[in-house]
Amino acid sequence: MSQTTSNEMWGGRFASGPDAIMEEINASIDYDKRLYEEDIAGSKAHAAMLADRGILSAGDRDAIIGGLETIRVEIAEGRFAFSRQREDIHMNIEARLAELIGPAAGRLHTARSRNDQVALDFRLHVKSALEGFEAGLTAFIEALLDKAEAHADTVMPGFTHLQVAQPVTYGHHALAYVEMAGRDLSRCRDALSRMDECPLGAAALAGTGFPIDRHQTAEALGFREPTRNSLDTVSDRDFALEFLSFAAICATHLSRLAEEIVIWSTPQFGFVKLSDAFSTGSSIMPQKKNPDAAELVRAKPGRINGALISLLTVMKGLPLSYSKDMQEDKEQVFDAIDSLNLALAAATGMVRDMTIVTDRMKAAAGHGFSTATDLADWLVREAGLPFREAHHVTGRAVARAEEKGVGLADLTLDEMKALHPAITDGVYSVLTVEASVASRTSFGGTAPDNVRASAKAWREKLAKTG
Amino acid sequence: MSQTTSNEMWGGRFASGPDAIMEEINASIDYDKRLYEEDIAGSKAHAAMLADRGILSAGDRDAIIGGLETIRVEIAEGRFAFSRQREDIHMNIEARLAELIGPAAGRLHTARSRNDQVALDFRLHVKSALEGFEAGLTAFIEALLDKAEAHADTVMPGFTHLQVAQPVTYGHHALAYVEMAGRDLSRCRDALSRMDECPLGAAALAGTGFPIDRHQTAEALGFREPTRNSLDTVSDRDFALEFLSFAAICATHLSRLAEEIVIWSTPQFGFVKLSDAFSTGSSIMPQKKNPDAAELVRAKPGRINGALISLLTVMKGLPLSYSKDMQEDKEQVFDAIDSLNLALAAATGMVRDMTIVTDRMKAAAGHGFSTATDLADWLVREAGLPFREAHHVTGRAVARAEEKGVGLADLTLDEMKALHPAITDGVYSVLTVEASVASRTSFGGTAPDNVRASAKAWREKLAKTG
Amino acid sequence: MSQTTSNEMWGGRFASGPDAIMEEINASIDYDKRLYEEDIAGSKAHAAMLADRGILSAGDRDAIIGGLETIRVEIAEGRFAFSRQREDIHMNIEARLAELIGPAAGRLHTARSRNDQVALDFRLHVKSALEGFEAGLTAFIEALLDKAEAHADTVMPGFTHLQVAQPVTYGHHALAYVEMAGRDLSRCRDALSRMDECPLGAAALAGTGFPIDRHQTAEALGFREPTRNSLDTVSDRDFALEFLSFAAICATHLSRLAEEIVIWSTPQFGFVKLSDAFSTGSSIMPQKKNPDAAELVRAKPGRINGALISLLTVMKGLPLSYSKDMQEDKEQVFDAIDSLNLALAAATGMVRDMTIVTDRMKAAAGHGFSTATDLADWLVREAGLPFREAHHVTGRAVARAEEKGVGLADLTLDEMKALHPAITDGVYSVLTVEASVASRTSFGGTAPDNVRASAKAWREKLAKTG
Amino acid sequence: MSQTTSNEMWGGRFASGPDAIMEEINASIDYDKRLYEEDIAGSKAHAAMLADRGILSAGDRDAIIGGLETIRVEIAEGRFAFSRQREDIHMNIEARLAELIGPAAGRLHTARSRNDQVALDFRLHVKSALEGFEAGLTAFIEALLDKAEAHADTVMPGFTHLQVAQPVTYGHHALAYVEMAGRDLSRCRDALSRMDECPLGAAALAGTGFPIDRHQTAEALGFREPTRNSLDTVSDRDFALEFLSFAAICATHLSRLAEEIVIWSTPQFGFVKLSDAFSTGSSIMPQKKNPDAAELVRAKPGRINGALISLLTVMKGLPLSYSKDMQEDKEQVFDAIDSLNLALAAATGMVRDMTIVTDRMKAAAGHGFSTATDLADWLVREAGLPFREAHHVTGRAVARAEEKGVGLADLTLDEMKALHPAITDGVYSVLTVEASVASRTSFGGTAPDNVRASAKAWREKLAKTG
Repeated sequence: MSQTTSNEMWGGRFASGPDAIMEEINASIDYDKRLYEEDIAGSKAHAAMLADRGILSAGDRDAIIGGLETIRVEIAEGRFAFSRQREDIHMNIEARLAELIGPAAGRLHTARSRNDQVALDFRLHVKSALEGFEAGLTAFIEALLDKAEAHADTVMPGFTHLQVAQPVTYGHHALAYVEMAGRDLSRCRDALSRMDECPLGAAALAGTGFPIDRHQTAEALGFREPTRNSLDTVSDRDFALEFLSFAAICATHLSRLAEEIVIWSTPQFGFVKLSDAFSTGSSIMPQKKNPDAAELVRAKPGRINGALISLLTVMKGLPLSYSKDMQEDKEQVFDAIDSLNLALAAATGMVRDMTIVTDRMKAAAGHGFSTATDLADWLVREAGLPFREAHHVTGRAVARAEEKGVGLADLTLDEMKALHPAITDGVYSVLTVEASVASRTSFGGTAPDNVRASAKAWREKLAKTG
Repeated sequence: MSQTTSNEMWGGRFASGPDAIMEEINASIDYDKRLYEEDIAGSKAHAAMLADRGILSAGDRDAIIGGLETIRVEIAEGRFAFSRQREDIHMNIEARLAELIGPAAGRLHTARSRNDQVALDFRLHVKSALEGFEAGLTAFIEALLDKAEAHADTVMPGFTHLQVAQPVTYGHHALAYVEMAGRDLSRCRDALSRMDECPLGAAALAGTGFPIDRHQTAEALGFREPTRNSLDTVSDRDFALEFLSFAAICATHLSRLAEEIVIWSTPQFGFVKLSDAFSTGSSIMPQKKNPDAAELVRAKPGRINGALISLLTVMKGLPLSYSKDMQEDKEQVFDAIDSLNLALAAATGMVRDMTIVTDRMKAAAGHGFSTATDLADWLVREAGLPFREAHHVTGRAVARAEEKGVGLADLTLDEMKALHPAITDGVYSVLTVEASVASRTSFGGTAPDNVRASAKAWREKLAKTG
Repeated sequence: MSQTTSNEMWGGRFASGPDAIMEEINASIDYDKRLYEEDIAGSKAHAAMLADRGILSAGDRDAIIGGLETIRVEIAEGRFAFSRQREDIHMNIEARLAELIGPAAGRLHTARSRNDQVALDFRLHVKSALEGFEAGLTAFIEALLDKAEAHADTVMPGFTHLQVAQPVTYGHHALAYVEMAGRDLSRCRDALSRMDECPLGAAALAGTGFPIDRHQTAEALGFREPTRNSLDTVSDRDFALEFLSFAAICATHLSRLAEEIVIWSTPQFGFVKLSDAFSTGSSIMPQKKNPDAAELVRAKPGRINGALISLLTVMKGLPLSYSKDMQEDKEQVFDAIDSLNLALAAATGMVRDMTIVTDRMKAAAGHGFSTATDLADWLVREAGLPFREAHHVTGRAVARAEEKGVGLADLTLDEMKALHPAITDGVYSVLTVEASVASRTSFGGTAPDNVRASAKAWREKLAKTG
Repeated sequence: MSQTTSNEMWGGRFASGPDAIMEEINASIDYDKRLYEEDIAGSKAHAAMLADRGILSAGDRDAIIGGLETIRVEIAEGRFAFSRQREDIHMNIEARLAELIGPAAGRLHTARSRNDQVALDFRLHVKSALEGFEAGLTAFIEALLDKAEAHADTVMPGFTHLQVAQPVTYGHHALAYVEMAGRDLSRCRDALSRMDECPLGAAALAGTGFPIDRHQTAEALGFREPTRNSLDTVSDRDFALEFLSFAAICATHLSRLAEEIVIWSTPQFGFVKLSDAFSTGSSIMPQKKNPDAAELVRAKPGRINGALISLLTVMKGLPLSYSKDMQEDKEQVFDAIDSLNLALAAATGMVRDMTIVTDRMKAAAGHGFSTATDLADWLVREAGLPFREAHHVTGRAVARAEEKGVGLADLTLDEMKALHPAITDGVYSVLTVEASVASRTSFGGTAPDNVRASAKAWREKLAKTG
């Protein structure tokens, strides 16, 4: 393994340069270049503050800020030559700044360290990602609300154990995902609020003796306040762990929707038709229309859970303060951001585009004795049976109907009376799927009016907080 | 595998009973009996509400509530005979209630299902656990504040990469953990607020046609409000996932403290002495005093991360609404509750009991050229060098001192001047560890006065919110 | 928290006893009592060897072995009083031995430590569990082979993306699981062979100066040979990690079968009927027949993956040799053993008991233009089209048939010729599902004869190695 | 999001093209281009076999193989224009082949599908990676053996709980890692053997009716034999899961070594000195020499465990056969391959380069009463005490020495006799660290001669199997 020349930034003390393995395991520029905007914004705010506090001359400040802006444009336009020997985004930018403006570049690092610098850049990036997810979740909720309102009266089978249990409305089903996404949105906002503290100025680990103003840089960079403990600041990755926890739970919700779409778009179910935009064909089987997007959304918790475990594992048992292990934080978080972004966009797109096949849903809702509970409830309410006895009578009714190969509503009144003498023909009014869903008016129940009211309440809530 | 008799609760329809494997894989009573208090509290609130709404007679209500109280006492006193054939805590209690009060017991299950019942019991349990962690985290923070105040001036080495970096105060170090625990407390409270919705009344999945009052039961059971969507209610385990995320991050913090205790109590470091209460001996090596408690605290993220991954894995891709897979939620969460409780108690106890060996800390703080940054900062501040140049000069000073086998402060002024002509003897005032920590007065820096101020601010914050 | 009396085994040096927290976090007897047989077997072998090597008198040996046998019976019969103060199974047994035989008990621990003792006990337990899985996997494979042979000709839809792709035979489908289980069996055997080394005699960490014979104890305890490095021996949990990896992959296979059973037993699919023994009912919906066992099997990877991650996390970054963190190994492994045992037994039982609904399978196989690939292949083979062109022609045929609402075989020859002039009426012979599966005779293909040959080969293989 | 044009490969049937989200979530070319060599090798073997079996003309075969070789060179030389619209490596190559050789390219996909094609490519890649790890592990073991042989007599403290327990030799310590790496090597070879079956010819899922020869392609591609079940073949990712399990355990071993290096290179321990090649400096603290490589190696289990969990999570509960979820397999495995490669190379390099500071090790070995066990053993052996009593006597000796602030060997004979009258001055011969390690001659014990013998045995073993 060939030796490379000594790293120009910290090489003064070293007899020989890090060799090729070291460069490869140590360099982060291949992925942390994604942080260039945050790094430059942080440096600009730092330089402005240093000048305001008399630590940097106005001339140096202007040279630095001008040089940084030049670099920002070079990177944005793809004209910047990233170097692995300069290890990371911070060193790449700083070295380029020295080329552009000379020794004044060296004054930028006063009262700062890579430790608080990377903590700042990474936190800004995660913060910005979470702000994006606020918007993405809102769009997802709106797509679901559109479907819920359009299908407040659409009857479908409610499943438990993937067996038909009781009829519900598809609008109610869509609103279940609104509740999940609503909690995700709430978690996203809590995480944003908790991470709204600026790391800049913690320096290497102990703070600094320069008379810096951390409240100024915090404000300039859009934070509520600076962090309160320098050791914690450079050792902490809670904001990343909390983002990953949020992402894992959110992706889990999306995976449940995706599984339903996969199952519902089989010919056997046929409850939904995906748009061509979210399906693909087969290289060998010309007739196939595969729910690839749904499958990929279903799979995303794999990598997001993996990222969460990765970072938890890395942080476990690390003594304070900064350890190099923590460099393993970024790729996992970047991948989780991208994965969740894609999953959320694809889920939103699928919900918007997919066709609800109402007749297949309704037909399925009537199968499997789905109104058996309604019969049991009727026996409790109208005939005064204890629920457990009503449950047994209904069980016998189901057995009888199954034997005859008919639905519950097809049993004759005589057959019904044979099961329990208190049954009257009033019972038939509760055995249709429409009657069943209409009757579920308890708070949070599936009745169409509930669905409309709940969708309206969500619209108002989003209007207020969105 | 021998057949058991048919399950008495739902067996009406089955020709043969579930066999031994099925009983073993299906029964949850061995662990969900831990929920008996929650189950009984929920049933009492349900019965009271049913009576208020005219669905249950006052006589039945009184019989039910009386019977439930009898059962509660039986279980609390260890006189209850749990049965695996009755599967779970709900069925065990309901069957016993029938023995005690006869058929009226069967009326309790009106407008309710095991699906909302277990969602309620489990959520109440997790809520109560989180309330316990609020208290536990507060006690942990207070133990750390005691140490921080007592050691605001105690100098120790600040580490990065476990190498001596700059001097810090032990008080500042303790406060870093206060910040971590403070975020944990904040996450704990957010989770509590988000789960403060009562599942009872969602019934099997669709709500119910009985005229129940979910706001009444929510209030009776200490919830802010009822949940808003019945399908979501019986399908949701977000509250458990969010608890596990909180627990994983909190346990990670504790593991970092524990690793430090393990390292710091080696003879090589000798920074702390553990009390006998938190150490153990060896069966074969009589001289050993092992930091077992710290090691076990360090290990706890293993099982808590495992529990988090378990439940995320179980919930991934589950179609709505309730699936039996979700029964795998409880053991993992119970174990995580117990593990975090132990880890937090042990960490608090260790912090309280351990002796800080101030002379070892101070001696170590002076090693390793820990004030090199102070020299570099002095060169910037007093001699006007750009930081990067100051950094290089300091690197040469370190090399020279290392060569001579002395500390930086032991270099003569001539040697210093040979490194850079602008150095004066004013430089020696920044090269002691005391001067170094005293100078770090930036917001969040390690200076003793900062430590005292920060500890005071935390005391006031706890007094307000605790 | 009250103080308990000092631990009697290693307390000599401690001024005060461990307090209640310490006892709770430290004691492992609640779960490691499961290792009592292994512990006693190991101690007997050790005592016998010590006597043979002249380190222990014959009298002491006989007293020790006799006492240990008494204890074994006491525990097996539930008459042993386990004590948390005696921490673990080793100390519980040793202390009881002292009660039974007096000071001679103290000689048993010569040339041994808890470190090699627990390594031995745990390894013996895992080894025995793996031997059980060899048998369990064999039974599972046999149940699948029975189904494969019975259904070598049963046509069902082969799915990709859960969409109907091409017809296959159910026998072939069952054999896919035989392949998976066959690899599991192979991994199980490799793991067994790799862990077949006896830890006893590594002592605390360094070996011992007593003239012990580790080959003798290894042989007595059924191991191929002793381990080769004492530090590694007491630090190593690879055997547990490898077991957990095996278990995670095996459970993943079972979860795939379980998911298919859940989907296939919906009314929409109706491909299988579960026996009552592996289904349960609903407390509120009398008509339900839920595939609970399948759902629980599907969920088991959650906890087994969690256990794997737990132990990997605990072992990560542990310096040699034994650290107390490693005590967190057992509960996870025990739980994984029990979970996999249950999942494997339930999967085997379900496969044995379930009814294949051949007419539903066959009807579904004909839907969705499942023989489109056969048409494309015919065009390549008989009409000489490049595959990609044949694929496009077939795509148009599918579109035409879909438009008409018919199957591919229902298109008229004129319609066919309009798609491509080279088509003759010979094409109709490949468009039936029976013709399709019969044609797939490539090695490993789905043709009925292949299924029979492959099942036969597996029978022979099992007969040889089982 | 703008619409793109319809995918040219499977677009015949679709009214509109997949939109931008779909392209982004669906396309795998950004990462699966890494498989280009495997893909081309597979296609060449397939074409050759098709021609031998009369399914393809010799002319077409030559054109195809020639075109593929052209493409291989284009990619290798960085001249190939990868396209996201062509989704994946298979389609990118096939489309380019069509450009190069015209319609004959369409004949290559006869009797093949992307499903068996990707299974082949990916398996070949993992197989090749494992072969690399065989070599890497061998080099790592050799580096450790060099150290072990050089330091067979170097005394260091053996730790348990990171407390000094008993003296050991550093050679013995190095050999502990040889044992771990030896098991890794063994697992690597088992995995290789188990995956040595060729997927090609399973086609989409059911095999094919073309008269292909799967044994020919298997042999041509270096496999022992073809897979036995087409459904399993396209559904299986066991080879990837088993690789990840192997990698996770191996990385765990390396992380333990890395943690030791981090701790041992602190000034407090000072047991080893890292070469400059495997250390880095600080941007702000000029005196720092950080063990970055060790920290990064310590962190690697994070991402490898994450990758393992990711793929286990993705595969859990997937119905047969191929589902698109499985596309999430590659990035995780590629990342794990690269991570383990780096970790293994860095660990090998560090072991080779690092300096063992023998005097620091020896000095530390003598601290902490590390020969207390030797005293206890002497009491058993020479004075006939039961071990437990000897243990108590030794405990009192340690307490006495601690009180006096001296080592065990510094207690006078009178003091010794006061502890137990049977002690003679022969006892002093076992209280030195050299005597202690020399005495540990039990099989696998730390005695220098054992170290030399064991290292020799490993050399011979490697020579035989390497």
